[in-house]
Amino acid sequence: MTIAYYARLNKIAIWNSFMIVFAFWKGSIWKIILDEVGTWYLIYLCIAGIYRFYLSAEQQEIFSSFIRDLQDKHNVCVPMQFMLGYFIGMVGERWGESFENVSYIEKVALSVAAFIPGVVNIHNRRNIIRYMVLSQILGIRQISALVKKRFPNNDALVTAGLLHETERKKLEKVPCAVYAESFVPIIWALKILQKYEEAEERTFKADNPREEFGGTGVYDTVYAEITEFHEKTATLSTYDTTPIPLAYSQIVIFSVRLYFFICLFTRQHLDMDDTYLELVFSLFPLLTIMQFIFMVGCMKVSSVLINPMGEDDDNYECNYVFDRNLFVGMEIVGWVKENPAKTHPDLDGR
Amino acid sequence: MTIAYYARLNKIAIWNSFMIVFAFWKGSIWKIILDEVGTWYLIYLCIAGIYRFYLSAEQQEIFSSFIRDLQDKHNVCVPMQFMLGYFIGMVGERWGESFENVSYIEKVALSVAAFIPGVVNIHNRRNIIRYMVLSQILGIRQISALVKKRFPNNDALVTAGLLHETERKKLEKVPCAVYAESFVPIIWALKILQKYEEAEERTFKADNPREEFGGTGVYDTVYAEITEFHEKTATLSTYDTTPIPLAYSQIVIFSVRLYFFICLFTRQHLDMDDTYLELVFSLFPLLTIMQFIFMVGCMKVSSVLINPMGEDDDNYECNYVFDRNLFVGMEIVGWVKENPAKTHPDLDGR
Amino acid sequence: MTIAYYARLNKIAIWNSFMIVFAFWKGSIWKIILDEVGTWYLIYLCIAGIYRFYLSAEQQEIFSSFIRDLQDKHNVCVPMQFMLGYFIGMVGERWGESFENVSYIEKVALSVAAFIPGVVNIHNRRNIIRYMVLSQILGIRQISALVKKRFPNNDALVTAGLLHETERKKLEKVPCAVYAESFVPIIWALKILQKYEEAEERTFKADNPREEFGGTGVYDTVYAEITEFHEKTATLSTYDTTPIPLAYSQIVIFSVRLYFFICLFTRQHLDMDDTYLELVFSLFPLLTIMQFIFMVGCMKVSSVLINPMGEDDDNYECNYVFDRNLFVGMEIVGWVKENPAKTHPDLDGR
Amino acid sequence: MTIAYYARLNKIAIWNSFMIVFAFWKGSIWKIILDEVGTWYLIYLCIAGIYRFYLSAEQQEIFSSFIRDLQDKHNVCVPMQFMLGYFIGMVGERWGESFENVSYIEKVALSVAAFIPGVVNIHNRRNIIRYMVLSQILGIRQISALVKKRFPNNDALVTAGLLHETERKKLEKVPCAVYAESFVPIIWALKILQKYEEAEERTFKADNPREEFGGTGVYDTVYAEITEFHEKTATLSTYDTTPIPLAYSQIVIFSVRLYFFICLFTRQHLDMDDTYLELVFSLFPLLTIMQFIFMVGCMKVSSVLINPMGEDDDNYECNYVFDRNLFVGMEIVGWVKENPAKTHPDLDGR
Amino acid sequence: MTIAYYARLNKIAIWNSFMIVFAFWKGSIWKIILDEVGTWYLIYLCIAGIYRFYLSAEQQEIFSSFIRDLQDKHNVCVPMQFMLGYFIGMVGERWGESFENVSYIEKVALSVAAFIPGVVNIHNRRNIIRYMVLSQILGIRQISALVKKRFPNNDALVTAGLLHETERKKLEKVPCAVYAESFVPIIWALKILQKYEEAEERTFKADNPREEFGGTGVYDTVYAEITEFHEKTATLSTYDTTPIPLAYSQIVIFSVRLYFFICLFTRQHLDMDDTYLELVFSLFPLLTIMQFIFMVGCMKVSSVLINPMGEDDDNYECNYVFDRNLFVGMEIVGWVKENPAKTHPDLDGR
Repeated sequence: MTIAYYARLNKIAIWNSFMIVFAFWKGSIWKIILDEVGTWYLIYLCIAGIYRFYLSAEQQEIFSSFIRDLQDKHNVCVPMQFMLGYFIGMVGERWGESFENVSYIEKVALSVAAFIPGVVNIHNRRNIIRYMVLSQILGIRQISALVKKRFPNNDALVTAGLLHETERKKLEKVPCAVYAESFVPIIWALKILQKYEEAEERTFKADNPREEFGGTGVYDTVYAEITEFHEKTATLSTYDTTPIPLAYSQIVIFSVRLYFFICLFTRQHLDMDDTYLELVFSLFPLLTIMQFIFMVGCMKVSSVLINPMGEDDDNYECNYVFDRNLFVGMEIVGWVKENPAKTHPDLDGR
Repeated sequence: MTIAYYARLNKIAIWNSFMIVFAFWKGSIWKIILDEVGTWYLIYLCIAGIYRFYLSAEQQEIFSSFIRDLQDKHNVCVPMQFMLGYFIGMVGERWGESFENVSYIEKVALSVAAFIPGVVNIHNRRNIIRYMVLSQILGIRQISALVKKRFPNNDALVTAGLLHETERKKLEKVPCAVYAESFVPIIWALKILQKYEEAEERTFKADNPREEFGGTGVYDTVYAEITEFHEKTATLSTYDTTPIPLAYSQIVIFSVRLYFFICLFTRQHLDMDDTYLELVFSLFPLLTIMQFIFMVGCMKVSSVLINPMGEDDDNYECNYVFDRNLFVGMEIVGWVKENPAKTHPDLDGR
Repeated sequence: MTIAYYARLNKIAIWNSFMIVFAFWKGSIWKIILDEVGTWYLIYLCIAGIYRFYLSAEQQEIFSSFIRDLQDKHNVCVPMQFMLGYFIGMVGERWGESFENVSYIEKVALSVAAFIPGVVNIHNRRNIIRYMVLSQILGIRQISALVKKRFPNNDALVTAGLLHETERKKLEKVPCAVYAESFVPIIWALKILQKYEEAEERTFKADNPREEFGGTGVYDTVYAEITEFHEKTATLSTYDTTPIPLAYSQIVIFSVRLYFFICLFTRQHLDMDDTYLELVFSLFPLLTIMQFIFMVGCMKVSSVLINPMGEDDDNYECNYVFDRNLFVGMEIVGWVKENPAKTHPDLDGR
Repeated sequence: MTIAYYARLNKIAIWNSFMIVFAFWKGSIWKIILDEVGTWYLIYLCIAGIYRFYLSAEQQEIFSSFIRDLQDKHNVCVPMQFMLGYFIGMVGERWGESFENVSYIEKVALSVAAFIPGVVNIHNRRNIIRYMVLSQILGIRQISALVKKRFPNNDALVTAGLLHETERKKLEKVPCAVYAESFVPIIWALKILQKYEEAEERTFKADNPREEFGGTGVYDTVYAEITEFHEKTATLSTYDTTPIPLAYSQIVIFSVRLYFFICLFTRQHLDMDDTYLELVFSLFPLLTIMQFIFMVGCMKVSSVLINPMGEDDDNYECNYVFDRNLFVGMEIVGWVKENPAKTHPDLDGR
Repeated sequence: MTIAYYARLNKIAIWNSFMIVFAFWKGSIWKIILDEVGTWYLIYLCIAGIYRFYLSAEQQEIFSSFIRDLQDKHNVCVPMQFMLGYFIGMVGERWGESFENVSYIEKVALSVAAFIPGVVNIHNRRNIIRYMVLSQILGIRQISALVKKRFPNNDALVTAGLLHETERKKLEKVPCAVYAESFVPIIWALKILQKYEEAEERTFKADNPREEFGGTGVYDTVYAEITEFHEKTATLSTYDTTPIPLAYSQIVIFSVRLYFFICLFTRQHLDMDDTYLELVFSLFPLLTIMQFIFMVGCMKVSSVLINPMGEDDDNYECNYVFDRNLFVGMEIVGWVKENPAKTHPDLDGR
């Protein structure tokens, strides 16, 4: 689940800065980066050890001159910062667009509640909401590992009460293994709508003729909300089939990795005549480790953002969205059960 | 409340530049940064004192060589400017989007006034406006500390006349503690609309049959405006539940903090043979303090922008927006009370 | 008024480059920057004079060492370019959005002309146009000094024929001193619309029953155009109440000012043994003055853009927009007066 | 006309790179830059000649020391790259927006064809298309030199068959010299529409009553498409009256020009003791010329983009758009002439 | 086909980084860059050989001094990174827009299914879907080499069952060789729609009068979806006729090529007195090759993105989109064949 830390930002004070940086573990840079920093430092120590204890003076000389040559060209030739910069920009923009394409149920639910009112129609309203959430799950299941884990197959959907056995059979008859099957529940929802438009007088003979009134705009508005809801989910799928070009990601990841691979050598302390204290400092290259945290951390956050449906701590909580949509949607379409407020008192007291 | 300073920019002159920079205290960089600059400078002085008076000449030597080593790598290894740059961009874009998602009441009010005219319907119009503002408050209360302070619970809403006791009971029956309850007043507003569509002939038997005419487009237009109003508030909530990834904020804040922590050492004046005058200058590192103001200030402004609903001086005045929406909305829907202009004189005088 | 110089860009040649840079005075960089460059250069000369003629050799020595220390840190510690860069980006984006929120009358006028045709309705059409322009003036008057100057109070509006005495009294009864009163004429316009929808059979008994036909979509389309027109003006107001955070502007302006304040010292020619010719060159720091023009000019252009409703040469010509909207709008809605073309000859000659 | 070179990019190979860079002349960087590079190089040679042959050794000494002083500050003080960077960004964004505001006829034509079907109505359909193209020409003629050249006055429009003599007289009666007259043909088109809505039973008594059926949504859809078509043209006009602030363009152009003016001096080969071969190299400053090509080229491309309606090779081919719109529009609205497909065979063969 | 590699990003670990960088061949940076790196390195070796074995000591001296002069100005004068940066930004934005203009069939299909229900209408529904896909193919065929390869002429379309012989003849009668003919199938689809609106009572006399009911909003909604589908394809075409200006692409490509051409000389190891080991290192300029991979790779990825319809591995799979649209569209419009679900069980089990 995404980590909510904005409360800490209500008042900007030094103390809150520290809290933001150090008080979170889940979703934090420390959790993301710790094992890599450790690995890198171990290798760094090994190379330092080999240089100091196993190489002859002559070999040390050759090694040093080789390293110094590298140091000259290091920053010019591995344009890590340049690469990373444009990557962050591109990824960030995509992340924002994904974010805008997660559907929320309110608009569908409100339109259904407004245009298909009446106690007698409650089942149809609830079914439309259910079909919406079902469609969203079917669509996102193909691209999100977390959702796949929760609903690995249609059985799980049946168990969760989102899919009925009869519906399941129909769903599985549709031969769309390679394409998203998320449009199927949309069709079911439209079928319900259609009954109101088409066969009102036959199917929905109800006790209270006024209650079941569906309004003239059933198709216009509800249809529009339902397809918009579905379109967003479909757009999320296309983001998955048309990712940021592989070669571009490769260049960025490779340049960051290569930069710090070279740092293993160029940031070694080559002078053998240093004091004991200097040696200690040289064996803990604080600033290089900081740089590692900043740049590799930055790259990893981008890699998390590039696939917002992944399993990382900071990815979208799609499962949360499903639960929320189901709950809020059912609440909204169920409001007709309570007695409508007879009196709407005015601001100044009736 | 956001600080309006554009008047100072009408004519760009040197004098106005100075006024903008120095004549404001509330919301200014000086107010944001003053305590931090003071703290940093005190620590800087302590380290300078220890270096000069407590360390032996030999220790000073070791300290100096250590610092010089740091100075070499400082700027390369702590890419503060790079990090901050992308952070400002990302945050600024989000801020602009939040800004666009604060709902203003005009469109709802105009549609209500246009499609539900008539003196007899004034209570319903006023109630719809009230429900809109109420929904906005309920939605934003969850994410804004200032609004939470003004309306800590539903009692405060009742006291403010925005919620009636009967409505309050209904509101509290909805079990949506974890999700926003802002959709409840929207449902109430739609219920009023529905009466016009559904039960016109029964409920609204009024003295003046023409006045209460509601137009054929009641649902089409008013419904659209109401849901759009609500959708914006709902979007603001999703910004809160899906913040900019924690790790990214951590990297940025940490890199700025670390940079100036290291500056405490690398910007020390290490030469002990300086004259009295040089010593004075060295003890007040003017340019480093300026850099501190610029970069930490920049980071803090970004932290303010990242959470536009916080309590800082430059955050959105949501409470102002509520008052404004209530006042303007009530004015607009109340215009029917005045006698409609009999004559609309033309531009050229009738 | 904004300066139209694109004609010079039709053919890109060296000569046109020079013309663009040097042939304009109004709205040009030279007009914006001249007095500041002069002031800065005078102070520079004073400091040079003091250094050369009033200081003893020893004081010169101290001064020089102090300056050299500044020179080392100058560029690193005052990140003018970095600050200015993001400022330009943020301001430019806002400027573009303001630009898109200046309403043009065409769409309203065309919808009115199309849906409320007929010679008999000409007064109502003209009034709607007038109310639109009036609303725009009332809204922008609060944020634009130029408009405030032209229409300082409602008297001026009456004199200009945009507001009638009877309307003025109604307008001033609305107690919205603190909020924009621009919604009032919108209500009046909607009232006219409403007559067509509501009381067609009573009020508008006209000689030619077919001519006054208003179409069935009066409310749907005209209402939408009118509220869209108004919404843009309202958005412009919100830009004014929610400016770019003060602290951010302060940092940028302060960093540019500080940079060139320090340049007064660091760009001094400190060597006293130079020849007469070198002295002359040193007393006219051409490149520093160029840098001043570029960076301060850039900052000032941004300050102009940040408040597009100001009084600078390159701000929006809102008064021009009002005149244009009134003229074009009246032309469009008045077209019915001419006899409609009986024959619409085809492309191939009838 | 814009140069289509994407075909060369289908397969990215070294050879194609060379082709793209060197095989085009029209619209190429070489055509844009050649004369300027030549001029610059000539002046460079003159200065080199004067330095080497006319100056005494002492004067050379003074000249050299002056140049070396310039070289130190050159790059810091003339922030060409910084200026150019933001200019490219701002200009590129505007260019994209202009691009999106060139109207294409398809949507209008399809709506006309769909909602005003029937053989009998063909003249009206064709006239609407003609009025659309006419409106576009009238609007763009004011801002595009190329269009002005093709249609210098209304005579040319009459000759091209786009305007009839009767229409011309009406058009010229409208007193809108200072504002765009592009709205006039839109009114004519709406007048045609209005007949269908208003006076169907009188004017359009046709032989085949079913064929002339116009559908109920004539106004809703066709009206919307026509005004959208017109709005885009109108937006293009506003881009012309509200250009990117002059001062900003001046700063950018001036900084690039100044940079290379200074390069005339700082890139001179000052050492007089060089061999014959070095002299030859020094007299052809290859890298500086490359830099000239890159930066001045970049500035000039931006200047072309800033005014997409200019006469440069890479500007919009508005005349092409007109021809295309007229042709495609007439084709679409004329499709009714052919006998409608009696049978629509299915995918699987009927 | 675009390479889906996001699955590797679900959990960000070192191992996955390596997999992403090295485990893909198709669409990878290695495939794009390999031949160019090889070519460059061969030339580099030739120059090294000539320098070492064919030049006399004196010539080596001249060569060296020439190279050193180049090295000084190399990075300043060939602003590769600056150029490439803005190119990536501009290209990336366009790529995103192209991506959004690839039409997906869902919305059209759902609207057709909802508004033209009934078993009897199945052929018309299927034909509309077919016409949509046909229009998309006709439009994209002009700009995509891959689609051109699959459907080189109308014969191929007939063979694929997308175009019937009778339709083909009509299509080829339309004289629009130079403009896209993609609007023709749209007209056919609208013709089908029109029948429902216009001649319902004559043509579609069916056995089950209720089943063939088309709803009142046939034109409003289905028409809008169809034109939106077509508009996207048309927009893709305009991207092709108005490319990013040639001169701009030339500058970028040329600057990258020139930079590495100069590197052939400036990165040579000029010192002849090196040991055997140094010689070996010097003959394999690892970091320069890395820089080549990064920068040329970056340029080539941009060149791929600039023309998303090309034949490169990472271009859009338009052919995939056609197949998908045809399959999904037919599924959606065919759902009426199955018996509609009699019972829609509720969430809680009926």
